[in-house]
Amino acid sequence: MADKIEDFVKVHVERLECKNPTIICGFPGMGLVGNIVAQFLMDQFQMKACGYVESRLFPPIAIIYGGLVKSPVRIYEDVSREVVIVFSDIPIDPIISGEVGRSIINWVKSANPREVIAIAGLATTGEEHRVFAAAATGKDLEKVNEKALIFEVGTISGVPGVILNECQNNGIPAICLLGETRGASPDPRAAAEVVKAIGSIYGWEMNVDILLKDADQIEQMLHKLSEQVSEAEAKPTRDYSIYG
Amino acid sequence: MADKIEDFVKVHVERLECKNPTIICGFPGMGLVGNIVAQFLMDQFQMKACGYVESRLFPPIAIIYGGLVKSPVRIYEDVSREVVIVFSDIPIDPIISGEVGRSIINWVKSANPREVIAIAGLATTGEEHRVFAAAATGKDLEKVNEKALIFEVGTISGVPGVILNECQNNGIPAICLLGETRGASPDPRAAAEVVKAIGSIYGWEMNVDILLKDADQIEQMLHKLSEQVSEAEAKPTRDYSIYG
Amino acid sequence: MADKIEDFVKVHVERLECKNPTIICGFPGMGLVGNIVAQFLMDQFQMKACGYVESRLFPPIAIIYGGLVKSPVRIYEDVSREVVIVFSDIPIDPIISGEVGRSIINWVKSANPREVIAIAGLATTGEEHRVFAAAATGKDLEKVNEKALIFEVGTISGVPGVILNECQNNGIPAICLLGETRGASPDPRAAAEVVKAIGSIYGWEMNVDILLKDADQIEQMLHKLSEQVSEAEAKPTRDYSIYG
Amino acid sequence: MADKIEDFVKVHVERLECKNPTIICGFPGMGLVGNIVAQFLMDQFQMKACGYVESRLFPPIAIIYGGLVKSPVRIYEDVSREVVIVFSDIPIDPIISGEVGRSIINWVKSANPREVIAIAGLATTGEEHRVFAAAATGKDLEKVNEKALIFEVGTISGVPGVILNECQNNGIPAICLLGETRGASPDPRAAAEVVKAIGSIYGWEMNVDILLKDADQIEQMLHKLSEQVSEAEAKPTRDYSIYG
Amino acid sequence: MADKIEDFVKVHVERLECKNPTIICGFPGMGLVGNIVAQFLMDQFQMKACGYVESRLFPPIAIIYGGLVKSPVRIYEDVSREVVIVFSDIPIDPIISGEVGRSIINWVKSANPREVIAIAGLATTGEEHRVFAAAATGKDLEKVNEKALIFEVGTISGVPGVILNECQNNGIPAICLLGETRGASPDPRAAAEVVKAIGSIYGWEMNVDILLKDADQIEQMLHKLSEQVSEAEAKPTRDYSIYG
Repeated sequence: MADKIEDFVKVHVERLECKNPTIICGFPGMGLVGNIVAQFLMDQFQMKACGYVESRLFPPIAIIYGGLVKSPVRIYEDVSREVVIVFSDIPIDPIISGEVGRSIINWVKSANPREVIAIAGLATTGEEHRVFAAAATGKDLEKVNEKALIFEVGTISGVPGVILNECQNNGIPAICLLGETRGASPDPRAAAEVVKAIGSIYGWEMNVDILLKDADQIEQMLHKLSEQVSEAEAKPTRDYSIYG
Repeated sequence: MADKIEDFVKVHVERLECKNPTIICGFPGMGLVGNIVAQFLMDQFQMKACGYVESRLFPPIAIIYGGLVKSPVRIYEDVSREVVIVFSDIPIDPIISGEVGRSIINWVKSANPREVIAIAGLATTGEEHRVFAAAATGKDLEKVNEKALIFEVGTISGVPGVILNECQNNGIPAICLLGETRGASPDPRAAAEVVKAIGSIYGWEMNVDILLKDADQIEQMLHKLSEQVSEAEAKPTRDYSIYG
Repeated sequence: MADKIEDFVKVHVERLECKNPTIICGFPGMGLVGNIVAQFLMDQFQMKACGYVESRLFPPIAIIYGGLVKSPVRIYEDVSREVVIVFSDIPIDPIISGEVGRSIINWVKSANPREVIAIAGLATTGEEHRVFAAAATGKDLEKVNEKALIFEVGTISGVPGVILNECQNNGIPAICLLGETRGASPDPRAAAEVVKAIGSIYGWEMNVDILLKDADQIEQMLHKLSEQVSEAEAKPTRDYSIYG
Repeated sequence: MADKIEDFVKVHVERLECKNPTIICGFPGMGLVGNIVAQFLMDQFQMKACGYVESRLFPPIAIIYGGLVKSPVRIYEDVSREVVIVFSDIPIDPIISGEVGRSIINWVKSANPREVIAIAGLATTGEEHRVFAAAATGKDLEKVNEKALIFEVGTISGVPGVILNECQNNGIPAICLLGETRGASPDPRAAAEVVKAIGSIYGWEMNVDILLKDADQIEQMLHKLSEQVSEAEAKPTRDYSIYG
Repeated sequence: MADKIEDFVKVHVERLECKNPTIICGFPGMGLVGNIVAQFLMDQFQMKACGYVESRLFPPIAIIYGGLVKSPVRIYEDVSREVVIVFSDIPIDPIISGEVGRSIINWVKSANPREVIAIAGLATTGEEHRVFAAAATGKDLEKVNEKALIFEVGTISGVPGVILNECQNNGIPAICLLGETRGASPDPRAAAEVVKAIGSIYGWEMNVDILLKDADQIEQMLHKLSEQVSEAEAKPTRDYSIYG
């Protein structure tokens, strides 16, 4: 195709009101920690929709809430707290994680970011729900001092990993917060610990009771959505080479 | 290939007589609800052929009715009722659903549409034939108030899903009507309920008796066509990367 | 690749002497009816080679007859009868049927065609060798009236199907003659019936005795060639994505 | 990718001293006849390296002889005999045979060739080691009269097949000599017969004793090299679509 | 994609202080000899980070050491010894080895290199840890005379193989040192012998005791990292054709 790879993922944000925002990226991954945290912050802060991410590489699917169509990857902002959230309802296939992450940071560069916070899950075999942190620079890592444990040696894959690499390559302050979880199923308890760490870092008061109370319901709904998206993806994934 | 993705699907309509049409899109899917509904409306309203959709991504196949060649995806209009139907005889592979849906809405934008109605099937395990609705905006959803149930949370995949997303992104009023069905085999009864809902929304008198009477015959013919298309697709699908 | 899809298949014809020819397309398919018919006509009319079709999508193979190299897809003409034949020694993979058919019709447009006759096989479970016809328009269909049965409902796949679609889209008169056969193995008897139908339509005297007498020999040679082509294709087919 | 297919294979020859050479192409194939013959001629005539063929489609591998790196596909010349040899140490995957063959003939056109001799193996189930010939034109075929048997009907696949097609399409005299062999394993005896035929055609005295004496050693070394190349190719082959 | 293959791998080095460096390339391979040697030299010489290699073909993954993000492929220099090291934490998939190797040598050309040393492992079934050498020219091979055994006949695959080919094609002096090892698991003992050979060639005093003492720990850490990278790669590898 003659289209540039860059054309495969487009960020649509007409006007951002935040002047120097903290940009939080919540994508599904281990324990769905990323999008549970993002969804919770969006609800708590009653954030305002301000854009969406579009890609012909996303599965051909419309997400419906309350009978209304939602873009699968959406952007919200909270002007009072200077926070922007980039949020995905659909898992991003590893094959397109690079493009999605690069396109987001490309847009972030134009948004005068204070810093980027990528949320991810970290699968372990333990029962704990610790929060770990990794960062682009030593200065970034200091900010989470005593609020999260240092992720000593390892790898961060998918969109959060790409976001960390890209922020470092572009000189954007960046932190990744990893909620310890046991696997792929939704884990609101791991998400709650990450929410508390964020609250502690930014001095935001956070009441995670709702998150913990609705845990079962969240797990069910996310599980159902995830199943439907998987079905829609099943066939196209193996055949996208048709566009070659 | 140097060709743009946009060049892979082309809508050919020389002149549309409708000035501000309701555009109904009927593509095969669960229960083949989409194309049974579209075929029925075309027959009932004796609509006039006015164009076709062409794509090198469609299987290399000619559709024959009465010894004459028909394009697999065709466009019809009814000037008196200001209705346009985009109709497909062949299932659209998930891999090309995005391009097909985007190309259709791209053309729709030039046709001064009143609104777009996408028809789809919704697979459930029940025995009922309810009709559900989802829409691009709350205002669109009001139009089907009491004529269909609201599709609360879920996903709509394939061409109808892409059409909903694209209408929303382009500010085109859009509704998706989903006929409850049990699976992939042709379901004229589910289609009949969607036809009744459409009649009730637009104040068109609809006699679905023919649809129900010919149910068995329709099922057989559609089943046979679908088998032949599958055979024609079988090999190319896995090899289209040859064009890479 | 930067090359346009159109560049993947090229028709090389330096100068055509026919002024307004009937163009007969014989490609292998069910019963190899297409190329047996074409080969027979070329021999009977002692037609003159006038071009070939070249494609980097064809298998990397040279066809040898009597120690001499032949292009796998060749074009012949008979100026006295105003007939052109496009003939293939190799089966055209469904993935490239679209490009091959489109390229041929693109060239046909420049040849001032009277009409196009696509030859194909129609697999049934019966023992008969009937000849069926489908056409681009009702006017075309009338020409074969009483010379072939009407192919009522169904699909025609591969190069003949693409040729029918493309002729219709380009306003070129076109007929497809389908010889009833039982499967994939060479069927000179089905081919003989199609030859008789062509003779009857154009008023050409045809002696199909040779075809029937040599049936066994033809079957063997075609079977052998087909096996060798399959072997040459086996590996590249699954790997052509290397060019991606 | 934006690169043209033509850019995938490049022939590097700085300056050819031959003015009107016979160009012999020896590529691995059945019985490895092609490269055993070429290697033998290069050694016998003590030919001088004058270029190499480079391609990003070749496996990522360096060939080592005596501790020194050799390009996998190399070009040698013998000015006194006006002979050029294009020689490959690695089997050329069928998927790239077309590009490799076309690129070589493209370069051959600029080398003012007297004629092209492609060497290949012909697998049969017999015990004989006959030599067969096929050619681009009847005039070419006469040259091998009584020195080789005519290859009556069949196909020649891979680089030799493409070379024959391309020579014919470009009006370059071309002959293919096929050494009868029993399969894929190295067959120096089949190669020896082809060497004798070449000697007889060109009036070159050939002592194939060395070839026959070292047969076992050649078989072993070629078998080992071939295994290593296969391992290097194993993974990339199925994944080259990554470049898509 | 419209991007050139060359754009898929980019070497980022802002300013190199070395004027005429020996460039050592250590990529994972058999026994992980390449990156163990490179890591050891970097530590011993306390080399300074000066650049990184970036590619959209690398897996979407961030490498974390001590809580900080590291590019997976990095470049270091030691101005006093005039040494540059190109080092990879991640195995380079055979499919992209060609592009990675070519891009590195493309950059090397601009760095006024004294010579290039590629490090690799050579799998044998023996228990020894000999060091073998291959080179671009006979002059290069003399430099390692009596410091390594000559690698007589065989192949070198992956990035080191491509680097040798490219250095030869570009006239850059190049040597490949191969540490004999038994398979894919990390082999610090094989690496230690290569380190000693390098020390002997360049007159650098090398204390490989640390390497041997920490052997177990190195093996464990590398094994863990390698597992995580494999997981991140698992899915994208088979689906990258989505970009086609």
